[in-house]
Amino acid sequence: MESRQRIMHAAAKLFAENGYHGTGVEEISKETQLGKGALYHHIGNKEAVLFEICHTRMADLLTQSGRVLAMDSSYQERFRELMRVALRNIADNVVEWTVSFQEFKALTGQRRVVIQEARERYESMVVEVLEGGARAGEFRVLDPLVTKGILGLYNYSYSWIRPDGDRTPEEIADLFSDSLLEGVLEQRES
Amino acid sequence: MESRQRIMHAAAKLFAENGYHGTGVEEISKETQLGKGALYHHIGNKEAVLFEICHTRMADLLTQSGRVLAMDSSYQERFRELMRVALRNIADNVVEWTVSFQEFKALTGQRRVVIQEARERYESMVVEVLEGGARAGEFRVLDPLVTKGILGLYNYSYSWIRPDGDRTPEEIADLFSDSLLEGVLEQRES
Repeated sequence: MESRQRIMHAAAKLFAENGYHGTGVEEISKETQLGKGALYHHIGNKEAVLFEICHTRMADLLTQSGRVLAMDSSYQERFRELMRVALRNIADNVVEWTVSFQEFKALTGQRRVVIQEARERYESMVVEVLEGGARAGEFRVLDPLVTKGILGLYNYSYSWIRPDGDRTPEEIADLFSDSLLEGVLEQRES
Repeated sequence: MESRQRIMHAAAKLFAENGYHGTGVEEISKETQLGKGALYHHIGNKEAVLFEICHTRMADLLTQSGRVLAMDSSYQERFRELMRVALRNIADNVVEWTVSFQEFKALTGQRRVVIQEARERYESMVVEVLEGGARAGEFRVLDPLVTKGILGLYNYSYSWIRPDGDRTPEEIADLFSDSLLEGVLEQRES
């Protein structure tokens, strides 16, 4: 099992650097110092590896996010916590998320469907908090398209965030949430 | 020149679908029905093609954005227009932007430096509007990191925006700008 995780991470690094289609099983074999037979035994074919990388990340994020949604606190606080959890997950697994965001379209058939559904489930969790907050009078009513922008606001951090940066992922999430929730316009006293 | 643009677009499609490292010169040759010699004559090597795709997009966006920055209007209006221009550019060239965002790290040496600098120049334009607006009392003072989030909010639309969608790119930009500028929190009258 340990060696399985090691293989997954090595493959994720190769996929992130050279793309899924640019990475051969030979290179995974070389990087992990396992023969192709042993590799196949541990992880199956290349697409199975890509699927497992994407699936592990999404499953983890969905579990953590489900916990946040069940919290007994304001929608604002749940939204903030949802985004802290997302940025922590991204920062701690930045290579795997890079692969998940950039290479998941290389998946085919049922594997593609499963990941696509998981992404939609996550998006619907964000919608749930935003719509719940609007119903409760905490948030403005937003166009559903805005959710896609909000996902971009936080998720695109995969391209620059690091777990050992000057600011923690949670602090970055809070900076983003402050701006988004309060708005960028200076409020006039009038 | 026409054929040059045709080659660029064909290569961009291949890079977007299979990644830069997953695309061989043979495939570009097949897709464009040009021999390798003719291809080399028109566009040089594969990295030169990737560079030109990224460079054309960035140069275009920088020119359009520079024009917006020079407008004689409020910072809020300039910010809104900057984002309309960005989303229109992304929607009209979605394949090229997909390549620019996902594959530019495959560039090496001076080519990588030029694109990196262009990206930083663009980021500094967004910072200029946000900081100008803060100095003028239109915007709150934002942490510089928030600019990265704002870029994600608009730019990540490359992954789903289409020029012939139900809403125009300008309408989508305005929806995003409304939420970001006004904030998501319901304003209490107090």
